[in-house]
Amino acid sequence: MATSQLNSLIEALRRLPGVGVKSAQRMAFHLLQHDRTGGVALADALAAAMENVRHCERCNTFSDTPLCDVCSDGSRDARQLCVVESPADQAALERSGGYRGYYFVLMGRLSPLDGVSTRELGVQALMARARDGRVQEVILALSFTAEGEVTAHVLQQALGAIRGPDEQPLQVTRLARGVPAGSELEYVDLSTIAHALVDRR
Amino acid sequence: MATSQLNSLIEALRRLPGVGVKSAQRMAFHLLQHDRTGGVALADALAAAMENVRHCERCNTFSDTPLCDVCSDGSRDARQLCVVESPADQAALERSGGYRGYYFVLMGRLSPLDGVSTRELGVQALMARARDGRVQEVILALSFTAEGEVTAHVLQQALGAIRGPDEQPLQVTRLARGVPAGSELEYVDLSTIAHALVDRR
Ligand SMILES: [Zn+2]
Ligand SMILES: [Zn+2]
Repeated sequence: MATSQLNSLIEALRRLPGVGVKSAQRMAFHLLQHDRTGGVALADALAAAMENVRHCERCNTFSDTPLCDVCSDGSRDARQLCVVESPADQAALERSGGYRGYYFVLMGRLSPLDGVSTRELGVQALMARARDGRVQEVILALSFTAEGEVTAHVLQQALGAIRGPDEQPLQVTRLARGVPAGSELEYVDLSTIAHALVDRR
Repeated sequence: MATSQLNSLIEALRRLPGVGVKSAQRMAFHLLQHDRTGGVALADALAAAMENVRHCERCNTFSDTPLCDVCSDGSRDARQLCVVESPADQAALERSGGYRGYYFVLMGRLSPLDGVSTRELGVQALMARARDGRVQEVILALSFTAEGEVTAHVLQQALGAIRGPDEQPLQVTRLARGVPAGSELEYVDLSTIAHALVDRR
């Protein structure tokens, strides 16, 4: 079956997370046999995204403009800043409909064993963001896993030392424990997330 | 989280078989965060393959040259032609080490309900291939599923009417029933495939 361009495609598909050699073969054969238009569209979308998608200057999420759509939306509540681990977690919060403030996306969580330190997470950028003079409350919407807990603890310490408007200390809260322990936020059902937002502590 | 290029990428990834919205998000985030080089390589490999990979003129498998590597190999036994459903099945036979003839790749199997007829499978091209005056035996290495059985039956009828060298009728054989019934050929272990080749009937 081996031709060089087909093999290159199969090898390249294996760089996607969760894709082994069998899956990569199936994907390549499917596109070649049934959906070349889709294959070309995927090539174009990949090239454009790898070239142009960077991080939002304010919230650190992925964006192909300097400010993302959420940060560009002036109608949100500037007194609240919600810290999440990933764009997927942010999307889950948005879908819950329970939050109208702004976000900061860590793009990970502290994991000393994997070499993810406060520096990799851009905690300095979060500190600067929380010091904009309008933020009064920072909501830590982190996963209730061991690494999420460590991250929350470290951020709570750092953020608690910041003064907000009128020299009041920032209020630092966490999602209520309505979220099942040990779970990844993006897989939690929406009403649970909505309740956890109301009961944040 | 929404930016247009990121969303386009997630949508495009969902066209891959077996990839839902969660997997597509994970793939996009992984490439953007950890492997932009891999993302660019995948874009290039996709574009090249969609543009250049066609079907081998002799055996119908995917190839970016008019003749594939196997058909270009003059050292194989031209008296044997093995009919398989897919390039993955062909690869499994090659790995078994039990076969040194040529192949014809159907790129599917007869499935009247899904609109896959003898025409879509290119059975005419197989007939022409089997009439090259050198082929003496056609081995039907098809899956032992209902659709594979129907395909084998139809091909057996058609190929049995062809005369080979010296006006002898073509011998049409099938893999021995060493292959577990109901299974997909590409997932069968190699020694079973090798035995089934020896015991073909
Ligand atoms: Zn932003
Ligand atoms: Zn060929």
